[in-house]
Amino acid sequence: MRAAPLFLLTVWLSADFGLSARSSSCSYSPARWCSSEESAIQCGVVKQCLEANLTRSLHTDEPVRLELYYETLCPGCRGYLTQMLFPTWSMLQDILEVTLVPYGNAHETVVGQKYNFTCQHGEQECLGNMIETCLLNMAKSTAFQIIYCMESSTDVVHSAKSCVELYQPDLSWESIQSCVDGDQGNQLMHQNAMKTASLKPPHDYVPWVTINGEHTDELQKKAMDALMALVCTTYKGYKPEACGYGQSRRYKNYCHAE
Amino acid sequence: MRAAPLFLLTVWLSADFGLSARSSSCSYSPARWCSSEESAIQCGVVKQCLEANLTRSLHTDEPVRLELYYETLCPGCRGYLTQMLFPTWSMLQDILEVTLVPYGNAHETVVGQKYNFTCQHGEQECLGNMIETCLLNMAKSTAFQIIYCMESSTDVVHSAKSCVELYQPDLSWESIQSCVDGDQGNQLMHQNAMKTASLKPPHDYVPWVTINGEHTDELQKKAMDALMALVCTTYKGYKPEACGYGQSRRYKNYCHAE
Repeated sequence: MRAAPLFLLTVWLSADFGLSARSSSCSYSPARWCSSEESAIQCGVVKQCLEANLTRSLHTDEPVRLELYYETLCPGCRGYLTQMLFPTWSMLQDILEVTLVPYGNAHETVVGQKYNFTCQHGEQECLGNMIETCLLNMAKSTAFQIIYCMESSTDVVHSAKSCVELYQPDLSWESIQSCVDGDQGNQLMHQNAMKTASLKPPHDYVPWVTINGEHTDELQKKAMDALMALVCTTYKGYKPEACGYGQSRRYKNYCHAE
Repeated sequence: MRAAPLFLLTVWLSADFGLSARSSSCSYSPARWCSSEESAIQCGVVKQCLEANLTRSLHTDEPVRLELYYETLCPGCRGYLTQMLFPTWSMLQDILEVTLVPYGNAHETVVGQKYNFTCQHGEQECLGNMIETCLLNMAKSTAFQIIYCMESSTDVVHSAKSCVELYQPDLSWESIQSCVDGDQGNQLMHQNAMKTASLKPPHDYVPWVTINGEHTDELQKKAMDALMALVCTTYKGYKPEACGYGQSRRYKNYCHAE
């Protein structure tokens, strides 16, 4: 769930920045503007993406790896994901790699060739977990944005279709439903169950966080209270300017008054 | 755009936390869970809201006031609002008060009793500015979340209706359209025009930021690069734990394994 690697820069410099910047035909979400040459030109952010690419090339150290074990309707999970984890990742995604594991305190039993799941907050939570699991497998780079949209809305499960349309309109809802109802989702959820069951130490509660594969009370507390500071201090390489250490050289993408 | 003041605490302590925490009938977005006694009980976050209320009572100093002058289709504005301002506000809303002024480099002329507006990125931008202006007037505490939803999506203008449904389903789209098409929106946009024109120094570009009413190159740069650090250092009172200064006492809202 890191930003997609950027493409070659050379051809861009001939692009018509002025026209691009004034176009209203940008059909990418800001999080995907720098995902391809086409999107950067269409959305008028060529210089910004060039700069982002150069800055990213300075972050040569391994990113901080955060895994979140959660369940979709647990209030504490929703609060943490929407008011701490996603905002922090939005600003630090160059140095923070997030893995979401929607399962939490669910249980599984084997019935024939399939797994049956029961969830702490009932059937709706099992459905929410399954939708988010399928999104993580199918939406790739926009999955976290879509999951944020669901978890921050007034209705986690019913918002899913709208959130997909808002952030990845080329991903059909039918294909997600097919995953949710079929063997693919069942297998993916079983993998979440196994990943959760193999935690050391085992989880006592959710949201449960590991940092670079490790869980301690101290890391959990820092991740819950001040994730930005935790990621900035844990990352040993060149810090992003958002960390506030005064290393900024970032290109400012402004629209100038005429 | 600060979190709504919390209500009296006493009656809450008798609420059934266990049942609330296990309910899936929560119909409020996490950002509004602590906005009333009813929402906190329904969403199983009573203890968390009590704690948030106590913590907030420690932030007795005036919040940092940030004004953002922007236009809805300017790429730099979309990037700043979605990848810096909203994430920072999500974590620091106890000490950060944001005022959005959607107008930017637009122009107005008087035609009869009304104002006509022309926008840097065309008609669609004027429509986007108007929708967001009406939302700021009508959606109040959820307006910033809805505007984030619009600006972070693949299509700022067309996403508006879905974003309202996701975050404030009790606000009818017809009432917003009525504002957008009518005198109310026209007057509100004129106020944005006047507020933008009265900036000292006048804005050269957007996104243009003032901090506690002041704009300098230094403040602008800090607000663009590392807003979290700027707000945390500017606020002179008791810092929120998200600032990373180790003052945390926050209640952790967990769902425990059974």
